[in-house]
Amino acid sequence: VSETIESLDLRALIAQQREGYSLAQPFYQSPAIFEFERAGWLRRQWFILAHGSEVGRSAYIIRELLGESIILARDDAGTVRGFFNVCRHRGSRICDADGRGNALVCPYHAWSYRFDGSLRSAAALPDGVDRAGLGLKSISLTEVGGLILGSLQGAPQDSARLDSILAAGLRYHGIDAARVAARRSYPTKGNWKLVAENFVECYHCMVAHPEYSSVMSHVEVLARPASEAAKAAFQQSVDQWWEKDADQGSPVARIPDNYRISSCAALRGPIGGGRLTQSEDGRPVAALMGNQTRFDGGFALFRCEPFVYLAALNDHAVMFQFTPQSAERTDVTVSWLVADTVADSDLDLSRLTWLWDVTTVEDKALVERNAKGVASIAYEPGPYTELEALPARFVSRYLEEMKADLDGRKGPPASGN
Amino acid sequence: VSETIESLDLRALIAQQREGYSLAQPFYQSPAIFEFERAGWLRRQWFILAHGSEVGRSAYIIRELLGESIILARDDAGTVRGFFNVCRHRGSRICDADGRGNALVCPYHAWSYRFDGSLRSAAALPDGVDRAGLGLKSISLTEVGGLILGSLQGAPQDSARLDSILAAGLRYHGIDAARVAARRSYPTKGNWKLVAENFVECYHCMVAHPEYSSVMSHVEVLARPASEAAKAAFQQSVDQWWEKDADQGSPVARIPDNYRISSCAALRGPIGGGRLTQSEDGRPVAALMGNQTRFDGGFALFRCEPFVYLAALNDHAVMFQFTPQSAERTDVTVSWLVADTVADSDLDLSRLTWLWDVTTVEDKALVERNAKGVASIAYEPGPYTELEALPARFVSRYLEEMKADLDGRKGPPASGN
Amino acid sequence: VSETIESLDLRALIAQQREGYSLAQPFYQSPAIFEFERAGWLRRQWFILAHGSEVGRSAYIIRELLGESIILARDDAGTVRGFFNVCRHRGSRICDADGRGNALVCPYHAWSYRFDGSLRSAAALPDGVDRAGLGLKSISLTEVGGLILGSLQGAPQDSARLDSILAAGLRYHGIDAARVAARRSYPTKGNWKLVAENFVECYHCMVAHPEYSSVMSHVEVLARPASEAAKAAFQQSVDQWWEKDADQGSPVARIPDNYRISSCAALRGPIGGGRLTQSEDGRPVAALMGNQTRFDGGFALFRCEPFVYLAALNDHAVMFQFTPQSAERTDVTVSWLVADTVADSDLDLSRLTWLWDVTTVEDKALVERNAKGVASIAYEPGPYTELEALPARFVSRYLEEMKADLDGRKGPPASGN
Repeated sequence: VSETIESLDLRALIAQQREGYSLAQPFYQSPAIFEFERAGWLRRQWFILAHGSEVGRSAYIIRELLGESIILARDDAGTVRGFFNVCRHRGSRICDADGRGNALVCPYHAWSYRFDGSLRSAAALPDGVDRAGLGLKSISLTEVGGLILGSLQGAPQDSARLDSILAAGLRYHGIDAARVAARRSYPTKGNWKLVAENFVECYHCMVAHPEYSSVMSHVEVLARPASEAAKAAFQQSVDQWWEKDADQGSPVARIPDNYRISSCAALRGPIGGGRLTQSEDGRPVAALMGNQTRFDGGFALFRCEPFVYLAALNDHAVMFQFTPQSAERTDVTVSWLVADTVADSDLDLSRLTWLWDVTTVEDKALVERNAKGVASIAYEPGPYTELEALPARFVSRYLEEMKADLDGRKGPPASGN
Repeated sequence: VSETIESLDLRALIAQQREGYSLAQPFYQSPAIFEFERAGWLRRQWFILAHGSEVGRSAYIIRELLGESIILARDDAGTVRGFFNVCRHRGSRICDADGRGNALVCPYHAWSYRFDGSLRSAAALPDGVDRAGLGLKSISLTEVGGLILGSLQGAPQDSARLDSILAAGLRYHGIDAARVAARRSYPTKGNWKLVAENFVECYHCMVAHPEYSSVMSHVEVLARPASEAAKAAFQQSVDQWWEKDADQGSPVARIPDNYRISSCAALRGPIGGGRLTQSEDGRPVAALMGNQTRFDGGFALFRCEPFVYLAALNDHAVMFQFTPQSAERTDVTVSWLVADTVADSDLDLSRLTWLWDVTTVEDKALVERNAKGVASIAYEPGPYTELEALPARFVSRYLEEMKADLDGRKGPPASGN
Repeated sequence: VSETIESLDLRALIAQQREGYSLAQPFYQSPAIFEFERAGWLRRQWFILAHGSEVGRSAYIIRELLGESIILARDDAGTVRGFFNVCRHRGSRICDADGRGNALVCPYHAWSYRFDGSLRSAAALPDGVDRAGLGLKSISLTEVGGLILGSLQGAPQDSARLDSILAAGLRYHGIDAARVAARRSYPTKGNWKLVAENFVECYHCMVAHPEYSSVMSHVEVLARPASEAAKAAFQQSVDQWWEKDADQGSPVARIPDNYRISSCAALRGPIGGGRLTQSEDGRPVAALMGNQTRFDGGFALFRCEPFVYLAALNDHAVMFQFTPQSAERTDVTVSWLVADTVADSDLDLSRLTWLWDVTTVEDKALVERNAKGVASIAYEPGPYTELEALPARFVSRYLEEMKADLDGRKGPPASGN
């Protein structure tokens, strides 16, 4: 009813958390904690806002980030810029929707702005007012291998790090020369941390994702306790693929042994089962992307927890976007990318979108059920199993950084490994 | 906006209440008071969760209690058990709907539980984790004469008391050998106390319930100021019925003089007017229930304020359920029971449900209008009349027990007389 | 989440406001500030509740004011009275809708009230209860030249002032002998201050109101920076109209030079462009109103900021009602009045309502876009331009009076000049 960070005693909540157990209820529910996150931790995170092909010259697009409406446009140098969609006069929203032109004109009193954010015109402005101080306010923005990444207050060193980890691989796999062939939204009634935890563990795959389990051979070792022999057999199959079948030109490294993947990384492995791509029958759904010269049946995963994920197959890629909307609501958007030379007439969208549409629909239901359960007075944190090392690690880091925020010392960037 | 029990000064609100007057506005509106009630007073109350016939063997049903999803199932001994619908792993809701089987399996990671609540299986659980501590959490539950009564934290002595007051009569009148023939829901936009007060007074009957007033002879003395002569005449008719017409086998006692009924009781009286049951024409709607041997035109009322009510006629019974949902919303559900030997083809549901459907629709409108009025800045507590002794008594006890809760001394159970 | 006037530090917010700049975000958004306004400042304001013709004898109508349901009825002396729609018994709303009769009867327990508010009957009321103290609670009410003005706690001297400024002109222009020919509602998702600011400036007219700009000649000087020559030319046209064409009988004064209009005033000027009224083609839409003897192409504006506005044309009038509903919602209602002798069959409603329907639809969109923008973390107060003297003045006075309320000294009435 009236909780605050103080009345909740967030510091005590953090101190009481038991290592290896899921978070206490307020972390998944409390509007006060959500506001605290949004005023600090979330504001420093990087999010995929759009694909670079979506922002042309003499055009602008509107995206949303943490409840903020953001205008994306390329300035004269071709650099994508991100602005809060708020007029500096009396605060009107400027753009209702994507549009074309060479300026942003507020529909209230016609104040206008250039694509670099500067004020271009404002009638009857009193003489003493400093026009230079009335440009649109910016967010942090960077374009990395075709992905437009934004953060309300992200630091430049973090964007440089994202670039160093992701850019070369994304370019090799053709993400910067791709276009969006399909996009679907999955508004999910659950805290963003439930969404984030769900996305990084495969313990639920065999129970809840029959389609994904039928496609991806790594489910064998990620989704259930496996014998040492089974683990070795799986590792051998990966090693063989890497040496014999894998495209040797890609700069993306092989998935590590036992899938010990870091929180920000690019990595590559085989789909398995003789499949060439993540289609239902395993056969291609589009032309090869980027510099790849043949179908090697691999997938490359580009990831920086908790919000940046892209899976690149030989012939398409799947871009995931997560937008925390409130303590109990997260928007998930999935985009399917193909090479920008592929025509719509050469695509069968139902084949292209099959796996990740059905999987995301399933994940939405899992998260929403989880959200209902943690809302109960009977909920108490439970133990992560051995197959949930990644959500356990994410929760650990989240708690450390929240504590640092409470201490007034801004924590390290969340994309740290 | 931001009230709390402290900022409201609930203690002062209670102290300021004038005996014989309705409650101050915050009691009917404040989310903070509702949360306070739900954390204490409401949690100790007993509610009708279901009829016993609804929970078969090898099956489970899902009910809601004070915002909590509850699983009801019979264990191997046939005893009904009630569990919070929350997985002990990461808190997922386990069951979306009623189902069949011999275990409860969480759809997230397949943890499963037996019908006694114990954990049956959980893959990859770390060695150090105590499985015995991971059973489903229980609520207080008891089955009384065919009614499944539950309480989030009700004490055993209270359930024993309910049993001693209600069980023998319920069994005699066949409630334990009945089935649900019809059920309707009446979500009501009003605080549960407005619903509770409305349900226990008949001062509004002649104004607002023409159907009920045409059926029940006691409206004569309950709904308007009656002369001593009229009261005596009514009492005489009750006495005559008791001696000459009433089924002599029932253990349920006669309604007391002047309807001075206690807050938890079973009592019996005549419908009056020559009617055999509460149908529109007064004629039977189904076969006799329980041990009754003839139509005596009586009704038996089983009641424990403020949430347990069942009216048993010779040939059917009406079971009332009340679920407080928020400070300004209460769900009301009415179920019509008949002997489990009566076939659907022998029932005319419109005749069976006529009186209490039309009456509950009317009550819903009354309560919702009351809720709108008490929300006004102009509302101030008004005087209960001489015909509203029951709501006045209920309000008195409620205030005493709230005060006890505030004092940190848990009050006596609300079903005390 | 849990802000209060204290945690917001409203006093500091007021102190930090820069003269000539729009308000800080919380003034446009905060539920706590809205509740503070509603508990004081708003409660003293006067609102148009209805047109006098809407309240007949032996009838009552229901209107809403600041979230309160209000009953309007004429007592035996013909004076309009306003009562909170709340029964003094247990607080039920009494009337669901407009009705006829000579008493107000509560549908719960039939308590009834006379049209002067006094309790007429209540069955079974205990002897000790004072019936005289159980009349309906009143609001402040006055009928001024055909307008029923109400205030939850407005002082009599303010209503007298409204009368002295508005009444004679309203009567001359026939508002007291008019009827409502059409009415439309425009629920607007924005704080009432955004609505109020928007209504009193025309800086946005040429950008956002093409229809209004095509009709009203004063847009030339109100909507854009005008040269001294242009201002002089406009003033000359007004002067000429006043001397040669304007109806000389009206007591309403000419609009002042440079439109320096006071916050509570009646004033008169020419529409311009040869138009006789505010129709699309400039030709009459109804018969002359009041004492006017010919079409002079003028408009008379009756206004007391921030909620009382009526525009009187020669043949019709437009009455504006504003109802703050929450921190982020305001209801706007527009009524079109004609002489009560004009029959519906003589009216073309689409011609009558054209200008202010299209203009209010546009204003609703402007305010809602403004509300979205000020909700951003990037919003900061911006400079009012030279053409926004009226909203700047309104904001100034609002801040002064809010400060006075905080100081515990009730401020001067908001309708002060």
